[in-house]
Amino acid sequence: MSFTFELLKTDEGSAARRGRFNTPHGAIETPCFMPVGTEATVKGITVDELHEIHAQMILSNTYHLYLRPGADIVKEAGGLHKFMNWDGPILTDSGGFQVFSLAETLKLEEDGLAFSSIVDGSKHFWTPADNMAIQEALGADVIMQLDQCAAIDVSKDEVAKAVQLSGKWARECVQAHEPHREEQALFPIVQGGLHEDLRMESIGMIMDIEKDFGRHPGFGIGGYSVGEPHEVMFQTLPHVAAALPADRPRYLMGVGNPTTLVQGVGAGIDLFDCVLPTRTARTGTAFSSEGRLNLRNAKYSRDFTPLDPKCHCKVCTQYTRAYLRHLVNRKEMLGSILLSYHNLYYLLNLMEEVRNALDRGEYGKFLTEWMNSPAANDY
Amino acid sequence: MSFTFELLKTDEGSAARRGRFNTPHGAIETPCFMPVGTEATVKGITVDELHEIHAQMILSNTYHLYLRPGADIVKEAGGLHKFMNWDGPILTDSGGFQVFSLAETLKLEEDGLAFSSIVDGSKHFWTPADNMAIQEALGADVIMQLDQCAAIDVSKDEVAKAVQLSGKWARECVQAHEPHREEQALFPIVQGGLHEDLRMESIGMIMDIEKDFGRHPGFGIGGYSVGEPHEVMFQTLPHVAAALPADRPRYLMGVGNPTTLVQGVGAGIDLFDCVLPTRTARTGTAFSSEGRLNLRNAKYSRDFTPLDPKCHCKVCTQYTRAYLRHLVNRKEMLGSILLSYHNLYYLLNLMEEVRNALDRGEYGKFLTEWMNSPAANDY
Repeated sequence: MSFTFELLKTDEGSAARRGRFNTPHGAIETPCFMPVGTEATVKGITVDELHEIHAQMILSNTYHLYLRPGADIVKEAGGLHKFMNWDGPILTDSGGFQVFSLAETLKLEEDGLAFSSIVDGSKHFWTPADNMAIQEALGADVIMQLDQCAAIDVSKDEVAKAVQLSGKWARECVQAHEPHREEQALFPIVQGGLHEDLRMESIGMIMDIEKDFGRHPGFGIGGYSVGEPHEVMFQTLPHVAAALPADRPRYLMGVGNPTTLVQGVGAGIDLFDCVLPTRTARTGTAFSSEGRLNLRNAKYSRDFTPLDPKCHCKVCTQYTRAYLRHLVNRKEMLGSILLSYHNLYYLLNLMEEVRNALDRGEYGKFLTEWMNSPAANDY
Repeated sequence: MSFTFELLKTDEGSAARRGRFNTPHGAIETPCFMPVGTEATVKGITVDELHEIHAQMILSNTYHLYLRPGADIVKEAGGLHKFMNWDGPILTDSGGFQVFSLAETLKLEEDGLAFSSIVDGSKHFWTPADNMAIQEALGADVIMQLDQCAAIDVSKDEVAKAVQLSGKWARECVQAHEPHREEQALFPIVQGGLHEDLRMESIGMIMDIEKDFGRHPGFGIGGYSVGEPHEVMFQTLPHVAAALPADRPRYLMGVGNPTTLVQGVGAGIDLFDCVLPTRTARTGTAFSSEGRLNLRNAKYSRDFTPLDPKCHCKVCTQYTRAYLRHLVNRKEMLGSILLSYHNLYYLLNLMEEVRNALDRGEYGKFLTEWMNSPAANDY
């Protein structure tokens, strides 16, 4: 098996686990946060810098790469790893979420998704099998099934329909991807919104697929962090995670607030991703041990202290808040670069601290300390 | 003397020289190209990367820093070196050029420049002494006199007036700066456009100042590369350089095309600066041994070769033209970052090769080879 998950330690007081997920491009120590490189680039960050901050696995986006430069060009380059020069593990999402949120005209059919390109208006149709072929061409280590993520404000009936369709498509994806399962791990995705019964129904459909096609190498959990309050996610998330097999990694999609990561680990989550660290950086916002800082605030004009005095990254040890504020104010690229670097470092370092706490058997203590710190306001 | 210029070697077949300019923040091996960091940041490049590509001295802009964040804040930070965390030599220009080219309302008076801020419309007036006080607060190693650079299309009479005013202001700058001449080197600037007689008149005025105030530590040559053809500059530039004392550095302001650098050295120039490498990078254009490349060109879509096969920088050894084109096409920050890095490396490396050729006594051979290479088209 190319993809194995080693459960190294489980926390006594929670569902948190310390694991190792092995892929063809190396092992990922979990719990792990994955920086997002939508367009085959983590915005503003070189691959050397990704190594420097100990990024383990990064995420890229099928929808964007399919439209530009095109999956054929990425394949010709030797796949996504060679194209972007990242030799560590990569995960691609299916692009289904982007089709739903970005495509101007979209038609959801039983067989797949019809949409028009935001680039040139051209018409496209993806069946689950088409989507697998595209993700196979891109060549990431982990690929995600094509699914339907119901919006936050739809009726339970609508969510139930999305669960049914996602389950059907999960099966079609697994079937289409079968010849390539040794090279690429396909994760099915649990949907069901904030309804626990629908979440369980989704898990049931996904586990049924195993009877015909064998073990899934891991599981995605989608449809959270789509606008609901932080606490509401945690009403069902622990039950969803607990209902998934313990011997495989669980990936909570699109979540990246510091506190949600720390608490998500306690709910039994192993993998996280989010654009938040780089997106907020580009608006002049930084994570910090004192809570989130908005550098556009005039109070930082003459603040010659480090961005986060407790952080050891090259931004916090080399530059002051006053200088970073100047860069942000002047819309200088270096402002976005340095804040993106720091924000990614901050989350990756946070997850390393979480892993260390788990190794020591002190996750509970770490969580309590975190929740009592000013940084906990960031969720 | 804090500022000394060692003439290490002179070329037999040309006016080229190999030198070393000593400043309080270290020695600069000349001939040298200085990357421009207008707003106290070389756009898209960290100071670690500037060290990585062996940048020796960088340039920053008084006009921009005076307006934002303000010279007082830079001073409070401990000066420009500390503010931007660059511990090597820095040069600031006076900002006169920017006042002329950027200010919306400008009134040129005998005593100084009246202008309104592009930020908030506030009124400002700079005498030469005011300008010195601002540059002293910023704290660069080398500062430039306030001068008037005549536009390319004005009459000879207008250029002559600009020479007179610049000469008068040079004296006022030197006088005002006298108490700080050990900490900061003030360069007067030769003006006179494309008129050799006016250039000589300008030099005469500048040298007259030495009788009262002692040796200038170096000289700026302004008013070139303002729109005239490449060849036209070289009709007068060698005579201008030759008319300046050989024992001090000569800085040709605002010039950064590869071929102009190589030829400028032969005219006796020691220092160069230009925004070209970073500005063209942001439009998707790269210097290369094959001439300039425009990565927006569709022919690079499937070109999986290095940006410049002869370049050893981290961009050329890590990424392909196809990938860089994708980044440029998608307006990804990383495209501007990587091309800026390469373009700066390219010019800094070119100057290192020129210095090595001078050390070997082979500048003439280097120049001939350069002019016969496809790279020579870039001027």
